[in-house]
Amino acid sequence: MKTLIKGASVLLTDGSVKETDIAVDGEKIAKVGDAKDFVADTVVDGKGKFAVPGFVNAHTHASMTLLRSYADDMNLMDWLQNKIWPIEAKMKKDDIYWGAMLAAVEMIKTGTTTFADMYGDMEKVAEVAIDSGLRAVLSQGIIGVAPNGEEAAFEENKKLFADYHGAGDGRITVMFGPHAPYTCPPDFLRRVAEAAKERKAEVHIHLAETKGEVENCLKDYGKTPIALMEETGILDCGVLGAHCVHLTDDDIALMKKYEMRVAHNPGSNMKLASGIAPVPKLLKAGVCTALGTDGTSSNNNLDMLEEIRLAALLHKVDTLDPLAVPAMEAVRMGTEYGAKAVGLKNLGTIETGKLADIVLFDMGGAAWTPKFDLVSLLVYAASSADVDTVMVAGKLLMEKKRLLTLDEERVLFEANRCAERISAK
Amino acid sequence: MKTLIKGASVLLTDGSVKETDIAVDGEKIAKVGDAKDFVADTVVDGKGKFAVPGFVNAHTHASMTLLRSYADDMNLMDWLQNKIWPIEAKMKKDDIYWGAMLAAVEMIKTGTTTFADMYGDMEKVAEVAIDSGLRAVLSQGIIGVAPNGEEAAFEENKKLFADYHGAGDGRITVMFGPHAPYTCPPDFLRRVAEAAKERKAEVHIHLAETKGEVENCLKDYGKTPIALMEETGILDCGVLGAHCVHLTDDDIALMKKYEMRVAHNPGSNMKLASGIAPVPKLLKAGVCTALGTDGTSSNNNLDMLEEIRLAALLHKVDTLDPLAVPAMEAVRMGTEYGAKAVGLKNLGTIETGKLADIVLFDMGGAAWTPKFDLVSLLVYAASSADVDTVMVAGKLLMEKKRLLTLDEERVLFEANRCAERISAK
Repeated sequence: MKTLIKGASVLLTDGSVKETDIAVDGEKIAKVGDAKDFVADTVVDGKGKFAVPGFVNAHTHASMTLLRSYADDMNLMDWLQNKIWPIEAKMKKDDIYWGAMLAAVEMIKTGTTTFADMYGDMEKVAEVAIDSGLRAVLSQGIIGVAPNGEEAAFEENKKLFADYHGAGDGRITVMFGPHAPYTCPPDFLRRVAEAAKERKAEVHIHLAETKGEVENCLKDYGKTPIALMEETGILDCGVLGAHCVHLTDDDIALMKKYEMRVAHNPGSNMKLASGIAPVPKLLKAGVCTALGTDGTSSNNNLDMLEEIRLAALLHKVDTLDPLAVPAMEAVRMGTEYGAKAVGLKNLGTIETGKLADIVLFDMGGAAWTPKFDLVSLLVYAASSADVDTVMVAGKLLMEKKRLLTLDEERVLFEANRCAERISAK
Repeated sequence: MKTLIKGASVLLTDGSVKETDIAVDGEKIAKVGDAKDFVADTVVDGKGKFAVPGFVNAHTHASMTLLRSYADDMNLMDWLQNKIWPIEAKMKKDDIYWGAMLAAVEMIKTGTTTFADMYGDMEKVAEVAIDSGLRAVLSQGIIGVAPNGEEAAFEENKKLFADYHGAGDGRITVMFGPHAPYTCPPDFLRRVAEAAKERKAEVHIHLAETKGEVENCLKDYGKTPIALMEETGILDCGVLGAHCVHLTDDDIALMKKYEMRVAHNPGSNMKLASGIAPVPKLLKAGVCTALGTDGTSSNNNLDMLEEIRLAALLHKVDTLDPLAVPAMEAVRMGTEYGAKAVGLKNLGTIETGKLADIVLFDMGGAAWTPKFDLVSLLVYAASSADVDTVMVAGKLLMEKKRLLTLDEERVLFEANRCAERISAK
């Protein structure tokens, strides 16, 4: 299958923009540049479109999309104990599937091409990745709450790795998902690290999200969450750490030493009042810092362009430096750094040989006028509703705002049905 | 002219939502409730739509939309002196008109029904309000930079008041617009206050936007900007103060005493790294706090839903309180408080007798699924691209995403033409 994207404004790796063609052969980009001799099966008209790498959502819980707007504006523990956990306990495999399908519709329509997910019953989310055509980095959330609950989840994670790592024509990879240091004791984390190393698997884990978590970790183990990850051997695996809001300089040095990657979630951190992660410091230290939406219970959407914008705005005001996280750096966090953060080495930029995950924004609207600087327009002015066409691994998932792999009406119907059932008194 | 909005989900004044009708007679709401006996000239199908009060953009510079993406990610003085001021100097009346027309297209499409504007050649912006059907609160920006420059602008502001206060069937009101304490010396501010009082006009002014401004004001006059406004008599007029980022407790007490209103601009304050205004404190003190986008050079769009979302998110993380500025309070800042802030007493809520400025959001998309809480969905999940229908003073300006008063294609063409001319070397 060969596709030619003809005459688009293409965001190049150096941050410049050029009006040119993108030739796609199979799952990869064959050429960026004049390709009038490329014999394509499909031609996509790129005129008036801005071609950017597909967004990488480096931390989410797709199936939780079923809980969108169920409970907001509450204190964390009240929210978790009295709202989220009771309704999550009612979610069955069918709900997991349709919740993730609802997420898939939203992700494709807003330009996300890869998502890193941690939740339960992840084989259902793998099915969604296969059915939708999205790229997914999946991990079973392993929470040591119920007796032996973590053992079952640990086994499920091993099975998920065996069954789905490399599935979906290579679009699915699997990590281990120990939930967090406050839900997984050190000895258990050691066993997870061993299991991951045996399989050369990586680890996706929540780290240092709140001040309280860090204080408790220091009290219980005499170490920060990051230092505890070193001690337990987790940092010897490739690690994708979600949040990383409350960090010491020593933590950042450790993260750099072990090449740990961060999924920064500005929207969630703001809404849950978790704090502001030291992103300019992390970037300066050379720690790969990507962006995630977190689940829609704490966001409440899966709009990566919004996270890119928040990353660009929040750190400017936090550091009182208008040059902090410039527009192009925020785009890289949502694309190139995102790919690296979730462990995908051949992804995240539009260049020859890379996997063809490409999004076309329609620049026809008022918010794209006038066009002095397309990267600035994308980051500070545009809407994810301007996403027109989405390609993953060389296959079109959406063209001219029409979904090609999913039946949107059906998905919304089924998601509403599931939401009604789990929320029924 | 009578219009019936039939069977919409209507946001009521207490924050609850009811599926019912809105009967509009002339420029006002005749009834909120079952109106099947209302004989209407036009019926708007409200099924699947969320009816909310039109957004009030309490601080912007509409014509600057022509400069969108011209210069970003720079230090303030470098940006102003080397980029913004030189290009603004090239703007003629034709540019002011088409810049504001471009803004009008964007505002209507994103649900804004009233805008408070401060800039030059404001009679051209008044024309845009008349032509587009938007509601506008206009003031001539009076900057004492060039010798006698402020005298000419002062005279223009008086003429603007004489010519346009109450124009456009009452949709236009005029304020005085002394730019800021650092651009208008105290004696001049005294004269502006006198002129405003003579006419019972109100004042729109930038106040306490940056730390540096407050420090200089203390050094030059021994007073904070707010206290200086008391001394010069400005606070005796009704005052709409833009930004108000750096405030003392005494400032807040003065603001409350004089019933000063604030236009908070979270997007601009974040992008320019100005700081975080003490919004929860202002709201607690009973100071009317509204929302604005500021100009698109420092935002870079006119999307009020984005400002509502930022207000809800930013103050949670700033105060580390997840209950700070809840969703409905953020909506009020963008609607009800906005109307009060710009001096319009009969506007900002959907209830009988109020001016009929109403926006319908299409709730058909994935981000509106499932629907546990419509206010939460609006504030935390929706996109302004979901705005479907817009009414101002009982007249439809947009229906089913189609502009009824403006020729979008023509406006974008003319705006591009103007932008090209002023940016030519």
